Order: sequence, then structure tokens, then C-alpha cells
Amino acid sequence: MPTLIGVDVGGTKCLGVVLSADHEVQATARRPTATSFDDLSDTVAAVVEELEGGAAEQSPIGVGLPGLVDRDGRLHAAPHLDDPGGHEPIAAAAALSDRLNRRVLLDNDATCATLAEWQLGAGRGLNNFVLVTLGTGIGGGVVSDGAVMRGEHGFVGEFGHMLVDPDGPACSCGNRGCWETFASGRALGDLARAAAERGGLDGVLAAVGGDLDRVGGEQLEDAARRGDAGAAAVLDEFAHWIGVGLAALTNAFDPAAFVLGGGLAGTADVLAGPLERWLREFLYSSRRRPVPEVRFAALGPMAGAMGAALLTAPGRRS
Amino acid sequence: MPTLIGVDVGGTKCLGVVLSADHEVQATARRPTATSFDDLSDTVAAVVEELEGGAAEQSPIGVGLPGLVDRDGRLHAAPHLDDPGGHEPIAAAAALSDRLNRRVLLDNDATCATLAEWQLGAGRGLNNFVLVTLGTGIGGGVVSDGAVMRGEHGFVGEFGHMLVDPDGPACSCGNRGCWETFASGRALGDLARAAAERGGLDGVLAAVGGDLDRVGGEQLEDAARRGDAGAAAVLDEFAHWIGVGLAALTNAFDPAAFVLGGGLAGTADVLAGPLERWLREFLYSSRRRPVPEVRFAALGPMAGAMGAALLTAPGRRS
Repeated sequence: MPTLIGVDVGGTKCLGVVLSADHEVQATARRPTATSFDDLSDTVAAVVEELEGGAAEQSPIGVGLPGLVDRDGRLHAAPHLDDPGGHEPIAAAAALSDRLNRRVLLDNDATCATLAEWQLGAGRGLNNFVLVTLGTGIGGGVVSDGAVMRGEHGFVGEFGHMLVDPDGPACSCGNRGCWETFASGRALGDLARAAAERGGLDGVLAAVGGDLDRVGGEQLEDAARRGDAGAAAVLDEFAHWIGVGLAALTNAFDPAAFVLGGGLAGTADVLAGPLERWLREFLYSSRRRPVPEVRFAALGPMAGAMGAALLTAPGRRS
Repeated sequence: MPTLIGVDVGGTKCLGVVLSADHEVQATARRPTATSFDDLSDTVAAVVEELEGGAAEQSPIGVGLPGLVDRDGRLHAAPHLDDPGGHEPIAAAAALSDRLNRRVLLDNDATCATLAEWQLGAGRGLNNFVLVTLGTGIGGGVVSDGAVMRGEHGFVGEFGHMLVDPDGPACSCGNRGCWETFASGRALGDLARAAAERGGLDGVLAAVGGDLDRVGGEQLEDAARRGDAGAAAVLDEFAHWIGVGLAALTNAFDPAAFVLGGGLAGTADVLAGPLERWLREFLYSSRRRPVPEVRFAALGPMAGAMGAALLTAPGRRS
């Protein structure tokens, strides 16, 4: 069985991996992410070349991209790229295939992460689960009845833009009060700074020399682990907003479990308790039904690239 | 091919249908809905007896019930039944099977409606669509990749309890600002009465002899069809809230279309335009993607019973 190669195009870096026949990570390569699609093709090509060490390989490449990637490998919206103007999708898989001179399989980055966590990570053995990536924004993916859901076009799982409060903060998408304005990594930083301004985070502020701009999610988590009540209160407010969305997703998808990924997956020990409580609080009829388990992603920042590699596994997709 | 029998247990009535071999409605029977599960079994039995005309039949019966019905035919939460206390599910399919002396297939009523609209109604030919029933509350179901989604337990589609505004009205479920407090048939009546109290519906009020309690959804629709601007404004506000939810569901499920059912399906001509506009407004990146079509249910109040009958079609489910 051959190795599999996958590249995850993130907001700041392009990460490529080689998976061995038994799906262990054999090699990795990184490049800073480009902001135009043409430059991005070069970046992906450089990552692949480094992974292959210059050998004249022809094996297919899996690529994960943020944004709306359709089932034909076309990119409809790409928050990380400069806006090319016009509303026509970019034939991204075809262009990458030309550039790399081989078959390229493209999918949304969170869908790739879902595939990886399902096959190799925290979702192993589950027939129904929802992955939610809590990073700068919120993305996600769904395994339903033992298959990765893709929807009509391939756009399943854009959970970050569910509206949860019409009076909420402005979102990058143009609306107000999208879930990711309350429950993403960026939102946690905003919550922390607001609490610090109200005087509720003096212990945290002291630890960063009084510099409000240095109060972010990490400082909060550290303080909460040390028993700081103000920090715990902010994390509870944050967990409350995550719970609002997880309850909506449970009402919609009825998963056996959530797998929470993205940059916040590392905060499992301080978030897990409040999160489960708020999910139960907001879920319809939660005392009369099984409440989904909340798990944290197992593959860390590798999940997207590993899932992109799995797209190319023999028999997976045409 | 034999006929199929289905019974839909609604909030006020039990409706039974016989479907012919080519899935036409051959006969119907109605009884008022009981409020305890034991009485309900008798009601379902009476409906079936009337449909079969006393013949000693043994064909299986499909039954649709509101609430959380699991894949093993157990009822976890039933908003229309008196609370039996305790949190154990009712073994509803087994109890009905004993009562009717034959196999009984049970599912959620909106899931039944989804199956019927997919096989015989407005969803025919679609591989991915979301049905939303806008009745007293909001329910729904999903067809994904050419199959009715059921989720881990069978609870897919409880869309009415997605939270859309933390400052919204109290919901029967105990939370505030669930989607159904803004976008159900009951919510439309509430919006109308609030507008009338603000003096924005004088034309509508005049038509009901000034009696605020008689201003409901139907009066609004009639007035809007006559060109009443106040009534149109209330319907636009209502469409706005439906649009908020449909956008969230599009972000989550990526359907090709919505099929709107329930009591409000008859208002297609006044609601369709504003609804499509608000869906587009709230949908992530709507200028760069196909926006789901909004269809209205074709089978009317028969959908649930017809879908319950289809549960028993040979080869459908074990």
C-alpha cells in the first residue's frame, strides 16, 4: 500500500504530511500561506516537492482549503485569499492538477479534519458525530450514518455563521451575532478583554504587566487553572456560548458526540465541565434523552492535512 | 402490491390514511387526539379499525408521533401527551404492536412528512433537502445524499429549538428565544397582535370588528393579499425570522432546497418573496454560492399520515 500525501492550506501556513500505509505521519513540510490563488498553487507545489524529496512521483494529492469548496473541486468563497472580484468560482482542483501534473482531490479543510478525526482520531468508531473547529472562526463537519456528509454542493458544516443573537457583534461575513462572534478563539480573546476592562480580571492583568492587549485566551486558561475566579467566569461565559451552538446542532443533527477541534482543543480540562452543563441547559428536552458526549480532537493541527491525505486513499472517492 | 396504512398523531387529531399500491390516498379516518398514551393507543386502534372496515387484517401499521421517537420505537418526549412523570422513555411501538396485534413502525411526525414529501410531494427527485414544518411549533426532517437522515437516536430535525435570540420570548421548552418563538404559526399570531397594539394594523383590526384577539395569521395574510401595508410589514418581519433559521440550516446542511410545510404552507404567495430575500441576506457568502430553492409542501395536512404509511412499504425498514 502506497503512502498518502495531503496538504492543508490554513490562514497562516500551508502544512503538508505524508501518511504511511498504516496512516502514521511519516513526514511534514510547512510554508507560509499565500494570499492569491496563483501564489497558493506554487506554495502547495513547493510543499509537495519537499515531501517527495524531488522524486518523480505521480501519486494523487489531497488538499484541504478553508471556504466553500464544491464537489467538483471549485472554490466558491475563500476567506483567506485576496478577493479576486467577480462571483465565479475558481476551478481550484483543475488548476492544482495542472500545476502538480497529477490528480488533485480538494475538499473543505474542516471536512478533511472530520474525515481524519473519524478514521484516526477522536471520532473513531462513531457513526454519527459533529466536528466543530473552534479557531479564529468556527468551521465543522458531520459524519452521519457512517459517512462524511457533504450536502448538495459540498458546503456542509459552515456552523460559524449560524445566527445566535441579532444584537451580537458584527461578523466578518457582514451579518451580526453569528455563532463565531461569541464562540471562536477570537471571541474568547474579546470576552477576556471586555472582562478585564470591567475590572473582573485583575489577577490576569497583573500577570501580563497590566497590558490589556496581552490578555487573551491563553492567559485566561492559565489563570483558571490556577483557580482565578474572574478567569473562570469568563471561560464559563464562553462555554455558555459554545453550548448554545452545540445544543442547536444536537437538535438538528442528533449526533452521538461532538469532537471539538481547532486551537481551543487544548483547553479541554478547563472547558469540558462548563460546556457539558451549558449544552444540557440549552438542549431541547435534555432530561429525557441521551445528551451527546463532548470529546476533544485527538490529532491537533495535523488533522486537516491528514484528512486531505485520506481523500486520496484507494476506494475513497472517484 | 398491497395497500399501506399510516396514522399521524397530531396535537388535536389522529389522522389515518390508506395508500393504494400506486400511493394514492384511498381512504382517511379521523379521531380527536387523546392526551395519555394508553388512550392514544385506543384512538389509533379505532382509526385503523375504521380504515380497515373491520376486516381481519394483519398488515403492518406506520405511526407518526410528535416528539422524540428513537430508532427502537421508544418515545422520549411527547409535547402533546400529559407528562407521565419520570424520565424513562415509553416503549410506544411495542405497546401499539400489542394493542393492534401486528407490526407497528413508529417515527417522528415531521420525519414521516419528510419521507412523504420526498417520495410523493414537493421534494421528489431531490437528493438533499430540508423540510421545515411551520405549525404551532417548528419541526423538520432532512434528506441527505438520497436517504432520510435519522441521526444517532432518531431525533434529527428538532429545528424549532435552535436558539436565535437570547433576549427572545420564553419558549415552552424552558429556554428563551428558540426559533419557534419567532417563526412558527403561533409566533405569527403574536407578531400580528403586537403590531395591532402599536397601531400598525388598523385595516386588519377594522376587518375583525376591532377585536384584537381575533387578529391572527389568517387575517394578516388576507389583508396582505388585499395590499394592506401594515399586514405586509408584519409578514416581512415574520419572513425575516424564518430566513434567519433557513440560513442557519443552509450553513449546516447545504440542501438543494427547503420544503416548507405545516399550517403556513398555504401562505406561499405572500411569504415566498420576502423569505427568499431574507434567506439570501443571512446566508454566509450568498453571492458566491447557489442559494437553496424555497418550495412549499405539496401534500398538505396528509403528509404525516402518508409518510407513516410509507414506513411500512416493503423493503423500506426492518
